[in-house]
Amino acid sequence: MRATILYGAGDVRVENVPDSVVELPTDALVRVTASCVCGTDLHPFGSMRPEDGPVRMGHEFIGVVEDTGSEVVTVKRGDLVVVPFAISDNTCEFCREGLHSSCAHPQAGFWDAQAVEGGQSEAVRVPLADGTLVKLPVAADSALIPSLLTLSDVFGTGYHAAVAGGVTERTRVTVIGDGAVGLLAVLSAKRLGAEQIVLMGRHRARTDLGREFGATDVVAARGAEGVEAVRELTGGHGTHVVVDAVGHRLAYEQALGVVRRGGVISRVGVPQYEEAPIGFGSLFRHNLRLAGGPAPTRAYIEELMPDILDGVVEPGKVFDTTTDFDGVPAAYQAMADRTSLKVLIKP
Amino acid sequence: MRATILYGAGDVRVENVPDSVVELPTDALVRVTASCVCGTDLHPFGSMRPEDGPVRMGHEFIGVVEDTGSEVVTVKRGDLVVVPFAISDNTCEFCREGLHSSCAHPQAGFWDAQAVEGGQSEAVRVPLADGTLVKLPVAADSALIPSLLTLSDVFGTGYHAAVAGGVTERTRVTVIGDGAVGLLAVLSAKRLGAEQIVLMGRHRARTDLGREFGATDVVAARGAEGVEAVRELTGGHGTHVVVDAVGHRLAYEQALGVVRRGGVISRVGVPQYEEAPIGFGSLFRHNLRLAGGPAPTRAYIEELMPDILDGVVEPGKVFDTTTDFDGVPAAYQAMADRTSLKVLIKP
Repeated sequence: MRATILYGAGDVRVENVPDSVVELPTDALVRVTASCVCGTDLHPFGSMRPEDGPVRMGHEFIGVVEDTGSEVVTVKRGDLVVVPFAISDNTCEFCREGLHSSCAHPQAGFWDAQAVEGGQSEAVRVPLADGTLVKLPVAADSALIPSLLTLSDVFGTGYHAAVAGGVTERTRVTVIGDGAVGLLAVLSAKRLGAEQIVLMGRHRARTDLGREFGATDVVAARGAEGVEAVRELTGGHGTHVVVDAVGHRLAYEQALGVVRRGGVISRVGVPQYEEAPIGFGSLFRHNLRLAGGPAPTRAYIEELMPDILDGVVEPGKVFDTTTDFDGVPAAYQAMADRTSLKVLIKP
Repeated sequence: MRATILYGAGDVRVENVPDSVVELPTDALVRVTASCVCGTDLHPFGSMRPEDGPVRMGHEFIGVVEDTGSEVVTVKRGDLVVVPFAISDNTCEFCREGLHSSCAHPQAGFWDAQAVEGGQSEAVRVPLADGTLVKLPVAADSALIPSLLTLSDVFGTGYHAAVAGGVTERTRVTVIGDGAVGLLAVLSAKRLGAEQIVLMGRHRARTDLGREFGATDVVAARGAEGVEAVRELTGGHGTHVVVDAVGHRLAYEQALGVVRRGGVISRVGVPQYEEAPIGFGSLFRHNLRLAGGPAPTRAYIEELMPDILDGVVEPGKVFDTTTDFDGVPAAYQAMADRTSLKVLIKP
């Protein structure tokens, strides 16, 4: 079968690899019908050293169940399923609290940590199939597939940012970053009723989509100028919730600049730093809070799917390009160059 | 009048200073009947450079209103009042949300930032008297005074730690630090119904008081050994809430070690560091949250006072020493040496 493999910064290839198969009684084999490239994939694509690779790529996919282990009961051959970016048993104490991304099962974890499986492939062995997979009530060629695919990561991640930030109808929100996650954080804040949503981003096509998703204001400036602009838009005080959908330290510092006293910085962009200011002069003085982390997207699928099926929301609009396997290396480059927002892969 | 003045590390003196008087129509003059030394006072007592002083000391006090400005309406001459460590108007948008420690009024702020006023004095000019002062329904010589005095800071701060951490009856809590704030965080977690309260502290007399306040377990070990002990006591996972009542970076790192996946580190010890780990490997991976800051103790007084008046709780037990003004320098030294837990000052 074909699979996407990263060999080092800038060097991603689609190659033939041994077919994935069911190995454990709790596994399912999923034949991928749609996958995509994530902003997170761009971090190793931008900086991975060859000695740290090669690694299989892809953690967002939809596919058809082709085989199941003897203990799998919730899905069967022929089912169309969406696969969250975190493998989980959906039964441990953390999953029961909705924190599937911290599932305590020994086989739980992220696709990115799997040695020989990845979503940007023709097929994937899915561990803990009963916990991880969610059946979709549409056909594999449905027009809703792009939107349903976002349930595996980006929509659930944007939603997690808003939920972890505590967005309500009395909340003003700033979203830092106009990538797919940032735009879907806008959509999610809108869904939760936020009274004002300021989107900080510099790419007009993206921020236009952000306005369509519910942004009430767009600030293209960054740094001190951007902070000043957000404060002007929010009565001088900044916003109750700030979503960091970027993960760079500059975004965190920008968040500190626009968060309201007593407010929350909700991070879903994977931090590309370890230490940062959290002392008296940054977080402590005004009871600012930090929240967020890898989204338990499994926890949100049942809640978010009906609005997609009913056409109330269309998160799949974040896909502005579609490719086949041959186009995957170009897709990475286009996303890194920001000429593509997010690329859908149809095997 | 006499007032406590810090000249530099280790050099605290009680001296004669000009009498405080009402200056603004919103001021009140309060004749102090009880004040105390705070753990926070020990930071400058331990390290302040002489060129950064001298500074007036004290931010926790009870007293009798002796004079009021023309606009003051909520208190009058002769009222006994308790004074929170933050001056606030109790009417701005932050006060209305219960965040009095971030009051937006230009005269709002901490006593420690006032140039010529301080609670460890015979009298204090209190700005924004209507917002800041709370009348006490007892006499100045009531046996309840020590407990009521804790409403100005340490009880409210311990309670804020528990509230900001989201403690409920389904919560396991670790409290790091057996100082007065840590012990009152234990009492507060108990009040909110926490099912398990682990107190980390090494001073037997203090941890015994912690058990009396509601600690279910005491861990005397620190660092990796202490972390291991807490994990063993909590089914291997640590606790949902960790209160940092210390403020040193080692306490924060210890908190990272004992907090449960998805849990909260609630900081009320003033951080003695600015940068610390908050990246993927520390906070982000398991959706750990950071909360806390200077307690809006004004917000909690009406809620906490009835239990003191009814004898349900006795937070004043944190005072193990009483002194007059002549004994104030020795009181600082005793608290720094940890031979006194907290010293009450009777002028």
